[in-house]
Amino acid sequence: MVSSQPPALWQNRRMHPISRRRWITGAALATRALAQSVRLPRKVRLGMIGLEGHIGEILHPLDGAPDVEIVAIQDREPSRMKDVARNKHASAARQYGDWRELLDREKLDMIATCGTNGERAEIIMACAERKLHVVAEKPLAITLGDLARIKKAVAQSGIRLSMLISMRFEGAFRAMKQIVDSGEIGEVAQISAQKSYKLGERAEWMRHRDTFGGTIPYIAVHLVDLMRFTSGRELVEAVSFQGRVGYPYLQDMENTTATIFRLDNGGTAALHMDYLRPEIAPTWGDDRLRLAGTQGIVEYQEAIGVSLMTNKKTPMTIPDLPPSGSLFIDFLDSTYNARSSGLTLEDIYRVNEIVLAARDSADHKRILNI
Amino acid sequence: MVSSQPPALWQNRRMHPISRRRWITGAALATRALAQSVRLPRKVRLGMIGLEGHIGEILHPLDGAPDVEIVAIQDREPSRMKDVARNKHASAARQYGDWRELLDREKLDMIATCGTNGERAEIIMACAERKLHVVAEKPLAITLGDLARIKKAVAQSGIRLSMLISMRFEGAFRAMKQIVDSGEIGEVAQISAQKSYKLGERAEWMRHRDTFGGTIPYIAVHLVDLMRFTSGRELVEAVSFQGRVGYPYLQDMENTTATIFRLDNGGTAALHMDYLRPEIAPTWGDDRLRLAGTQGIVEYQEAIGVSLMTNKKTPMTIPDLPPSGSLFIDFLDSTYNARSSGLTLEDIYRVNEIVLAARDSADHKRILNI
Repeated sequence: MVSSQPPALWQNRRMHPISRRRWITGAALATRALAQSVRLPRKVRLGMIGLEGHIGEILHPLDGAPDVEIVAIQDREPSRMKDVARNKHASAARQYGDWRELLDREKLDMIATCGTNGERAEIIMACAERKLHVVAEKPLAITLGDLARIKKAVAQSGIRLSMLISMRFEGAFRAMKQIVDSGEIGEVAQISAQKSYKLGERAEWMRHRDTFGGTIPYIAVHLVDLMRFTSGRELVEAVSFQGRVGYPYLQDMENTTATIFRLDNGGTAALHMDYLRPEIAPTWGDDRLRLAGTQGIVEYQEAIGVSLMTNKKTPMTIPDLPPSGSLFIDFLDSTYNARSSGLTLEDIYRVNEIVLAARDSADHKRILNI
Repeated sequence: MVSSQPPALWQNRRMHPISRRRWITGAALATRALAQSVRLPRKVRLGMIGLEGHIGEILHPLDGAPDVEIVAIQDREPSRMKDVARNKHASAARQYGDWRELLDREKLDMIATCGTNGERAEIIMACAERKLHVVAEKPLAITLGDLARIKKAVAQSGIRLSMLISMRFEGAFRAMKQIVDSGEIGEVAQISAQKSYKLGERAEWMRHRDTFGGTIPYIAVHLVDLMRFTSGRELVEAVSFQGRVGYPYLQDMENTTATIFRLDNGGTAALHMDYLRPEIAPTWGDDRLRLAGTQGIVEYQEAIGVSLMTNKKTPMTIPDLPPSGSLFIDFLDSTYNARSSGLTLEDIYRVNEIVLAARDSADHKRILNI
């Protein structure tokens, strides 16, 4: 569902056609309206640092944010800048090979940063120093020490910070949260989740721990966020196994991981992830999320959608999901229009802490309190 | 798929209509024929000790084993003996309230024992002492110490011992093993499995650790056996979380568990189990098993069947599964006709060791080598 390697840089494979039909499951549930476009009180000058990764989640929504102007882009590869400059929103942007030079020369309001995982913390801290808001690829950092430094720098600077874990803005997962919040499945006692991706082409920096940080921090952020968001539960202990089978050219990059969590109510959760999805598969990923509660079970499978079964309700697939929204539009709206955000900074920090601890538990072979 | 509490004692809910159609996936694969009936060189006198649990897996196949005669049954509840005596194969059996008295008074060849988990080890050892073959409910024992004592007693006596983990005789899982053995999905790098059961009515003995032993030993045996059987891989480390959310009358009995394993090739496995399936659900259980290999993925879901996708083959559901067989028929055939068994004693011991260690890892909060 979420591509780690989109076929075209600015194509957001996650955006589904948006339906504004009223979403009904048995009784009508109130669906919080998500903005699909935003007007801002003034022009916002955006710089983009690092064009690898999910920059489509920035470029795609820009049609709905006419007050945002991309004034500069940076990448160490001129060919990537050339690709991005074909997008109408980036065609007039000045191009830099060095991100420090971009920050020094341009007058900016906000930075969107993707690029490699290992340099992200330094970029975020440099932006905080210059009082530039940041929307960043995930994870924010690849060590708990760097994460702590980011927290301190952001708090001191007063900037706004977001991270591209946008699955909670998708209709399927908003529906699951609403079902749990309605009480239909009772108290969540077990969560299970899967992420299975095609391997595709992997850049050199992904093959080394010091520039990549590991598969768990890189992609478990999505599912850990969804687990907490949809269930309303906190994760309190974690332990993982991680490894690579076959594909020796991947070097440090794990292609198979398994993590379990203890929930704050004594429940359990299991998360497995792999980069073993055949290239021939119809979609990039095969995401799954299942919440089993004391009164019922709600579940998402890529191939099926959202299904629900409770002690009172025979199994059904939810026909009309609430509309999906854009994380970036939400971030702009909350930053400049003082609207409450669908994703808090507290949640972002927490998800980063959890996935880094989940990776560390595998490295150190022990259960960690998180 | 496997009921822990069959609605009628002798009804085997797991037996599907048997198809002898040739099973084909792309190329024809050789399917080892499984006996559906057996003739034995002489009459076999069978006693049944403890009539709770999966005694249907003994009674159901008896139509295909005309040389087996149930001569005695035992249970502490007269009503259960009365129920079982309605089955034609048990109608002439003498009834006992005390299993030691049954063993002392009857001339027997083999014991089938279900009943409570806590007393099973003692019954098996008493049978070994009397040189009676045993087919036992799972697990064999609820502590590693008792398991070691069983191993010693069985080795000294020379009896044959089997255990009711019959899922590997089902067509779906035989198909998955054949697909892995054929090399179609490459080397297995990740295994994930689910067992979700209805709670139903739970006997008093299941609510106490000293008579039940825990949910992981009780039902993970099925999936641990299938993981090893289908993948051909060994499990080398394990760690679990287990708990009970809601349902306070269950006392010690866990209704949510999560376990991860490290595979012998550096791969990973995740297993989650729950007793949260709504009573309204169309089937008793929702079993799932997924093997992700370096060349493809094969998967079983209760609601879908077996599906396969490889780097060369677009996703497909396997239309014709190989026929299912009976564990008990196989055990009789191997014990009295010297045929090789589809389930070795070594595998049975190994599965017991793994699930007891997986439970102990949760009790002691640490990763265990297994």
